[in-house]
Amino acid sequence: MREVLAAGQGTERMQNIAHAVQQGAAAYLTRQFRTLAVFVVLIPFLLFLLPADSTSVAVGRSVFFVIGAVFSALTGFIGMWLAVRGNVRVAAAARESGEKLAMRIAFRTGGVAGMFTVGLGLLGAAVVVIIYKSDAPSVLEGFGFGAALLAMFMRVGGGIFTKAADVGADLVGKVEQGIPEDDPRNAATIADNVGDNVGDCAGMAADLFESYAVMLVASLILGKAAFGTEGLVFPLIVPMIGVITAIIGIFTTRPRSGDRSGMSAINRGFFISAGISAVLVAVAAFVYLPSSFSGLSGVSPAIAGLSSDPRLIAIGAVLIGLVLASAIQVLTGYFTETNRRPVRDIGKSSLTGPATVILAGISVGLESAVYSALLIGGAVYGAFLLGFGNVTIALFAVALAGTGLLTTVGVIVSMDTFGPVSDNAQGIAEMSGDVEGEGAQVLTSLDAVGNTTKAITKGIAIATAVLAATALFGSFRTAVEGQLATATQGVKDALGSFASFNLSIDSPNVLVGLIIGAAVVFLFSGLAIAAVGRAAGRVVYEVREQFRTKPGIMDGTELPDYGRVVDICTRDSLRELATPGLLAVLTPIAVGFAFGYAPLGAYLAGAIAAGTLMAVFLANSGGAWDNAKKLVEDGHHGGKGSPAHEATIIGDTVGDPFKDTAGPAINPLIKVMNLVALLIAPAVVTYADNVAIRVGVTVLAVGVVVGAVVVSKRRSISIASSDDNDNDHEERAPETVGS
Amino acid sequence: MREVLAAGQGTERMQNIAHAVQQGAAAYLTRQFRTLAVFVVLIPFLLFLLPADSTSVAVGRSVFFVIGAVFSALTGFIGMWLAVRGNVRVAAAARESGEKLAMRIAFRTGGVAGMFTVGLGLLGAAVVVIIYKSDAPSVLEGFGFGAALLAMFMRVGGGIFTKAADVGADLVGKVEQGIPEDDPRNAATIADNVGDNVGDCAGMAADLFESYAVMLVASLILGKAAFGTEGLVFPLIVPMIGVITAIIGIFTTRPRSGDRSGMSAINRGFFISAGISAVLVAVAAFVYLPSSFSGLSGVSPAIAGLSSDPRLIAIGAVLIGLVLASAIQVLTGYFTETNRRPVRDIGKSSLTGPATVILAGISVGLESAVYSALLIGGAVYGAFLLGFGNVTIALFAVALAGTGLLTTVGVIVSMDTFGPVSDNAQGIAEMSGDVEGEGAQVLTSLDAVGNTTKAITKGIAIATAVLAATALFGSFRTAVEGQLATATQGVKDALGSFASFNLSIDSPNVLVGLIIGAAVVFLFSGLAIAAVGRAAGRVVYEVREQFRTKPGIMDGTELPDYGRVVDICTRDSLRELATPGLLAVLTPIAVGFAFGYAPLGAYLAGAIAAGTLMAVFLANSGGAWDNAKKLVEDGHHGGKGSPAHEATIIGDTVGDPFKDTAGPAINPLIKVMNLVALLIAPAVVTYADNVAIRVGVTVLAVGVVVGAVVVSKRRSISIASSDDNDNDHEERAPETVGS
Repeated sequence: MREVLAAGQGTERMQNIAHAVQQGAAAYLTRQFRTLAVFVVLIPFLLFLLPADSTSVAVGRSVFFVIGAVFSALTGFIGMWLAVRGNVRVAAAARESGEKLAMRIAFRTGGVAGMFTVGLGLLGAAVVVIIYKSDAPSVLEGFGFGAALLAMFMRVGGGIFTKAADVGADLVGKVEQGIPEDDPRNAATIADNVGDNVGDCAGMAADLFESYAVMLVASLILGKAAFGTEGLVFPLIVPMIGVITAIIGIFTTRPRSGDRSGMSAINRGFFISAGISAVLVAVAAFVYLPSSFSGLSGVSPAIAGLSSDPRLIAIGAVLIGLVLASAIQVLTGYFTETNRRPVRDIGKSSLTGPATVILAGISVGLESAVYSALLIGGAVYGAFLLGFGNVTIALFAVALAGTGLLTTVGVIVSMDTFGPVSDNAQGIAEMSGDVEGEGAQVLTSLDAVGNTTKAITKGIAIATAVLAATALFGSFRTAVEGQLATATQGVKDALGSFASFNLSIDSPNVLVGLIIGAAVVFLFSGLAIAAVGRAAGRVVYEVREQFRTKPGIMDGTELPDYGRVVDICTRDSLRELATPGLLAVLTPIAVGFAFGYAPLGAYLAGAIAAGTLMAVFLANSGGAWDNAKKLVEDGHHGGKGSPAHEATIIGDTVGDPFKDTAGPAINPLIKVMNLVALLIAPAVVTYADNVAIRVGVTVLAVGVVVGAVVVSKRRSISIASSDDNDNDHEERAPETVGS
Repeated sequence: MREVLAAGQGTERMQNIAHAVQQGAAAYLTRQFRTLAVFVVLIPFLLFLLPADSTSVAVGRSVFFVIGAVFSALTGFIGMWLAVRGNVRVAAAARESGEKLAMRIAFRTGGVAGMFTVGLGLLGAAVVVIIYKSDAPSVLEGFGFGAALLAMFMRVGGGIFTKAADVGADLVGKVEQGIPEDDPRNAATIADNVGDNVGDCAGMAADLFESYAVMLVASLILGKAAFGTEGLVFPLIVPMIGVITAIIGIFTTRPRSGDRSGMSAINRGFFISAGISAVLVAVAAFVYLPSSFSGLSGVSPAIAGLSSDPRLIAIGAVLIGLVLASAIQVLTGYFTETNRRPVRDIGKSSLTGPATVILAGISVGLESAVYSALLIGGAVYGAFLLGFGNVTIALFAVALAGTGLLTTVGVIVSMDTFGPVSDNAQGIAEMSGDVEGEGAQVLTSLDAVGNTTKAITKGIAIATAVLAATALFGSFRTAVEGQLATATQGVKDALGSFASFNLSIDSPNVLVGLIIGAAVVFLFSGLAIAAVGRAAGRVVYEVREQFRTKPGIMDGTELPDYGRVVDICTRDSLRELATPGLLAVLTPIAVGFAFGYAPLGAYLAGAIAAGTLMAVFLANSGGAWDNAKKLVEDGHHGGKGSPAHEATIIGDTVGDPFKDTAGPAINPLIKVMNLVALLIAPAVVTYADNVAIRVGVTVLAVGVVVGAVVVSKRRSISIASSDDNDNDHEERAPETVGS
């Protein structure tokens, strides 16, 4: 942090712009935290009401829910705080010293967020284990839920903010007024830059913190079941190794003269840290784990009798995670880098217009999603095989693979923060007009690297969702079986063939749960995309208004009021995040109480399957479109200002809410739904024969979700509704827009 | 048919155009059938090798596979044969007599295909039941598989043909040359019109025939298990009623003067036939079914002891299907009709350019998919409840709901064929220039109605896929349990906790199957969209070549060579259908042999969940975009030629492969994968402990699929690759394109 802050800040104009961005970002986050405080206060009470093993566990779960949420917020805040300071320094470095220093500052800025992510995650989980020992798993559910819920809200809110500003700025600036991106005459540019930070920095850091925390939760829960007390230690050692490798990885990431692009240096840092992790994990396994299962204390007789070597299983699982992370890195890079075939093909398709750009991007996105899903599926299956037929060991192996994957999280957060920081740096450079020639070229190429790193992060984040969710099925089963063991005859009769634990999807009710789970992912994505459209519409209206009422803006004699657009984005994104948030929390509750625990389990599986594919599809098609635009801007197919450029700008605009709003929010969505399901599972079983409670809870949950969806649709529906077909918007007061 | 053929055929120019379309369509279908003959010859032998109860069943399954395939082809052929004759007569009627007659002819043309669909489906199933009696279920699997496989190929091939021609024609015509759609100077217009017929008529009719046949297969298999021998009769009576109501429905569909649009008449016909079906089914249940389960012959003791009334269960199930069909009709209409809010919103978003049109359409599509999925899920759950805890009865109720849904299929096929016939009529009118003023207006409004009816058909088709697939889980279970009962100890050891039937998705391997199932839907969609892009690229190249080498085309002194474009589309679509086809057949084989029966079952569930959502999303967003374009063409937001119009044209072009290639092919995809899984399930269990066979089959299946994907990517990748960035296409011979 000190190194970043010590760097030069460039010209006064650049500093002024950076200052405006800093103010806007801080204002947004403060207001968001105030809004979300209601959840952080309310939910602990609800959590306390749910069945728990003991009062101390119930209290701990509520307390650590708050701690998880606060840590999540803190990670996001710190990441963003430094990012809004790093951006101008990267621009200054590009102006004064060239690519190497610029890249170094950008990456180090991200490194701080990376350190916070791993440090706070490990701290929280370790404290829970130390305080609660064998009760730790239940308390950890609260910790993970707090982290995931806050991260989801930050991802959705930040994602709507950033893309409302970005799309709105582009639509009026590039499309209507024909002025370049980041032109200071556009009132939405500051909001656009603020958005990059609140969405891609704060939202992403919170998201990865949450991934880290939930993965640790899952591995600790299963570690205890599979490996006994040693199982509570080893899953903490792996991320400790991750802390070390993150430090090494971040400091070894520096461009060399022979590199093809900035991506090479990042890849090198990533693979070095993955390699070091693998070696250290192997050492740790031999130091901390016994050579046979009979040497483990506190495991079930079935497990103690296994003949395989727990050390090799642990090493194998962590290696699977590392290989998966590397494979996603390579695969995502292939599909989104400017110099690889898919992006070049999308670029070429710009010659036949925007429609083919869209189709090519969708086709690339769909295909890449499949390969990512197969990689993740392969990793899960590989870890499953490590269980040698014992499901508990298999699930622990899945969780350990996730922990292994996350030993690279330090580098990954650095990589991701790299994206918005260099994007912002380019924005500041362009707005100030003070960075030209080679410096500007450096920033453009860094920005393209940022698009790829952002897509990679999303791919890895969704992989953690699948691994964590798969592993948490073990906890789900334990929770349900615990209740089934003590269930009354009435409950057993009500459950029928589901009186013994069973999530078999050949039963129609279970299949219905599965379909609903997949459907929620589609609805969530659709709502998020629509929310961006609505908010962007209001930005378009405001910017148009400013051009109209302040005629001096265009010739530079008058300054636009940047703050108003920031305010609009802040207010709208906080309002728009309610519906998707309620959907995530309440739908599993409705499914569980309406249909039972088995459809609820299948619901999670459906959300995992559809969510994985949808998340990667949205992230990669968006990243590929963005880089196809950069490709054309680099002079291919006619270059800037050509019809091909216009076609790729359209592709990029479509991709904006894909890759930065809907796509990345799916990862915390899956985690939130999983933890909600896990927390309510005992209640769902207990009240299986209580029709009044079941109907009451279902009606309440469905009613709130439907109400939220209807209300959000009542607001102005599309971008264009701020501009009626009769072109009467000149007569309308801003207040009526969006009503 | 006689009524249609007796109608006037308009001017000579119109007849010439119609003749060219007829020739092209017949040539395509002939060539397609010749290509597919290899499957129809080869697969029966492979089928014969799979385990069967007796040799007569094995022979019957192979023979009825061929019959199913031939019936499917025949339905498609007849539907198309009349459609290419009906189109010109509709145009002539619009020119000479106005909307009422035009609509009547268009609807009657579809009616013939509708009659064939219900007639041949019922005939095939009834013959199997009469010949094979209690062995009928196994033989019916062959019949359904043949029908589904051929329908899938026809959907994919026809879908690629129609959209390659359409997109290619639009890109050169509207975008590059600035000439209107269906301008006779565009060499791709005839191919475009041929495509409407081979895709939307032939492909759709085969698809609905297949839905009908597979649904009947499922209900007969389960009917026997649930209701004994009466269970083989009642599922045949329901579609018999469907034949009667289809006739009534088709003849009552005629516009009245008070109708808001052509859609009102179609809705009336649909709801009248649904109502009549409900009444007749109730009568039939009281005549053909006993009042208690103990009165049924040949059922298991568990079922004979049930206290509920089988007649009420049957009536309830059929009613659920009818309500579902009506609800999908209403819902799809809401999301795709020009005068409803979603399409109007997309239309409005055209004011801010193509990007917002795309985003609005995607958002509408995603949301509508969720509601459709919830409706379908609700129907499945409702039918499940009718089982009162008995899974066999529940599955039969699901199947009966599907049969009930399909009593409306006669009207639905008529509705759907309505789309391409009126689209073609408009094309003929525009190309000939002989229909002007009110006549042209009539055809435009009929075309818009066609977009909605096409979306409705796809919604209903995918609903049948879900219901059939859910019901077929019963057969899957029976098939697996049959093998497990006689399995060797080696097999049982290899299966571990899956030695008794269990598809519980909390086991990681099962979850992996689920993810792969969902992934296949994404890959299939991506491949289909990419295939359209490639084929359209070659059309673009050819049309550009013709404009270049025949300068007289533009001023009307020279005729373009329509036949060459038809040839290109024919050749390319037949080549492109291989990869998605192989994917559908081989992936379940690979999953089954690699991972086992439980992941295979989950694979089907994943494909159902993701497939339902994806199919409706693609169909509805495509339909909505098309109608948003029509809305603008009707004079809103600037009307024809405005920037808003251009934006909606781009939306429509993106929607083309969504709604007419990828989307509708998902229904037969799900059915084919289901039937393949069902047919191989016994072998999968039998060879569970034979690693050599498992690895061999898996490697072979995966190898062929990967090879096919790689080969299809080797071909020119995107539309633009026919036009290199160096603009060197003038020097290149056509032969090098696409290599």
